[in-house]
Amino acid sequence: MNFTIDRDILLNNLIHVQKGLPNKTPLPILYAIKFEVFSDYIQLTASNSDVAIQVLVDDSSLKVHKTGKIALPGRYFIDIIRKVAASRIEIVLQEERLLVIKADRSEFKLKLMDVEDYPDVDFLDLAEPVILSSDMIKEIIKATNFATADNEKRPILTGVNFKYQDNHLYAVATDSYRLSQKNLSLRTHSKTFNIVIPNKSLDELSKILDHIQEEIEVYINPNKVLFKMNKIWFQTRLLEGTYPDTFKIIPTTFPTVISFNKEELLSAVDRVSLLSPRDKESNYNIIKLTLRQDQVVEISSTNTEIGDAKEEIIPTSDVVGGLISIAFSSKYLNEALKAFNSTEVTLNFAGEIKPFVIKGNMDSDLLHLILPVRID
Amino acid sequence: MNFTIDRDILLNNLIHVQKGLPNKTPLPILYAIKFEVFSDYIQLTASNSDVAIQVLVDDSSLKVHKTGKIALPGRYFIDIIRKVAASRIEIVLQEERLLVIKADRSEFKLKLMDVEDYPDVDFLDLAEPVILSSDMIKEIIKATNFATADNEKRPILTGVNFKYQDNHLYAVATDSYRLSQKNLSLRTHSKTFNIVIPNKSLDELSKILDHIQEEIEVYINPNKVLFKMNKIWFQTRLLEGTYPDTFKIIPTTFPTVISFNKEELLSAVDRVSLLSPRDKESNYNIIKLTLRQDQVVEISSTNTEIGDAKEEIIPTSDVVGGLISIAFSSKYLNEALKAFNSTEVTLNFAGEIKPFVIKGNMDSDLLHLILPVRID
Repeated sequence: MNFTIDRDILLNNLIHVQKGLPNKTPLPILYAIKFEVFSDYIQLTASNSDVAIQVLVDDSSLKVHKTGKIALPGRYFIDIIRKVAASRIEIVLQEERLLVIKADRSEFKLKLMDVEDYPDVDFLDLAEPVILSSDMIKEIIKATNFATADNEKRPILTGVNFKYQDNHLYAVATDSYRLSQKNLSLRTHSKTFNIVIPNKSLDELSKILDHIQEEIEVYINPNKVLFKMNKIWFQTRLLEGTYPDTFKIIPTTFPTVISFNKEELLSAVDRVSLLSPRDKESNYNIIKLTLRQDQVVEISSTNTEIGDAKEEIIPTSDVVGGLISIAFSSKYLNEALKAFNSTEVTLNFAGEIKPFVIKGNMDSDLLHLILPVRID
Repeated sequence: MNFTIDRDILLNNLIHVQKGLPNKTPLPILYAIKFEVFSDYIQLTASNSDVAIQVLVDDSSLKVHKTGKIALPGRYFIDIIRKVAASRIEIVLQEERLLVIKADRSEFKLKLMDVEDYPDVDFLDLAEPVILSSDMIKEIIKATNFATADNEKRPILTGVNFKYQDNHLYAVATDSYRLSQKNLSLRTHSKTFNIVIPNKSLDELSKILDHIQEEIEVYINPNKVLFKMNKIWFQTRLLEGTYPDTFKIIPTTFPTVISFNKEELLSAVDRVSLLSPRDKESNYNIIKLTLRQDQVVEISSTNTEIGDAKEEIIPTSDVVGGLISIAFSSKYLNEALKAFNSTEVTLNFAGEIKPFVIKGNMDSDLLHLILPVRID
């Protein structure tokens, strides 16, 4: 095996495949990246217990002098390519298990693993993909991923539920205290599906999508989903179990609706939560929102030890409905508001002890719900 | 007490005084900033077991309506002022122990501590200061502070030694594996002194100096040193004990002298240390430098598990003296090189098992020394 390639091209592709390397694994061969060098392209593979990634490198800067395949220590190799300043890299298999990397006046020798030990990765081989644009998938992840549960009490909630029914794709995440739902109508029809993708896998996918803009084929079976991009295949396991039916917990009638400038509301919430006491269960700062008789909204917190904070906000349009006073975690409202692209948001209240719903003027397909807490 | 002031002015002064707040203290009153409001200025004080800081705020934006003094919870107050967007802040003592902070439509109420509980801070009141420019002090800290010991095995080594003798100020730091020494000739004469300033205090002082350019009066007694700036007084305790006599460990004859482009050497060292094995005692990466017969310098490391790395560097001028091969911690060389402003540095070798000395073409008053390690 012997080839040369531009350093930047190699590095960018390594950064994609790196997302498939395990942090810790009982199977040391998985610390390797599998390099398969063909006459005019290279295939890179990394996999762990959650995801498998395959990247095709067919850049014009690649000159293959001798084909071959190896398993090389992934993180060391990436660190080296990241640190070398040379514009071009030469890679030569010197002995069966010894790789030489040359870059200007630098020379590295890396001991290899046995490529025959690298487990076969079964990428899904199915017909009839769902087609989604990379921007759409990125939007869905941004809008939902943060609302998943981060502990394992109810493992199914650590993923995002993707449900296709009635020609609509619903993406839902909830940690049982708040919920985020984005829905899309697809251009292509699909069979009904209802899957839950782990939030960590979506984090990694999202980083790859930051560098990509294309149509993506999505293949689904009961255990796995494969996102097939032009040169990158990203496959992740699915979470097992039944995702709760979240439609029924979203209130449908809202006696009080208040509109806010998003940034104004966000910074008021930030300031008030500086002094707010923490909820015993969640350890989050609890703040109170009150619509006053004079139609001004007061956001406030009271901390018996430190002091009080109070912000006044004038709604951006006439308030619909009656007075309300409701308490909730400032973290949930902060994170929800950040998920909106809108300049203006409405808070839709179903009652003081019922979940309230946030919508945005420029996010027609996005809905966020927060459960209130009781305070005295 | 009642005054108004521009938010940015207040915040910048709070950020200075904040460096005197303790992280943890058995004396809760020290979590307070002492505010003394006079008719045309405010004095802010914070102190902990290491340092005491007093800041004078006499900005033209300050309008005092009523004088007074209070002790307010430091970090909460700073967080609030940092988060408010208003350009002007109004601060009113509402009750004996309740402060109201108003900024646009934000209102905070902070419970106060008893200002009479705040301990008196004795700033040194001496004659005959040493005069140093803020730039000079910043230079000294940058050149020495990183080379202090970070553990407490020999507490005296966790500080920087400032020694004045023969009209020269020597600043020295060593962790007993490497040493950095900067010397200056002072414009004013001074009595002889030999003190050790804790590295943490110098870190905090350095951050304050980033915003200041002026002549500073330095007052020294056996226990404390006071840096008296125009509007900021910064006082720190000194470390007790005798600092080792470091002059005698610096070699004076160098059989081999090699010149390098600093950046080239730095990045070669960085790359080689990617694979280098770690020293058992220090856990630092050990690398080897070898001057070859062909006058090329080789920097290398060998890791029996992972592989080898090798860099070739051509010295920037003719090598003086014979061949050498020497091993040392790459971290020490990396940190030393970063302390130099020079574009070109020389490595001055006294022998393969003797400390070597680094000097720079643009840092005539700076010297750095590194102890080699034995490898086979």
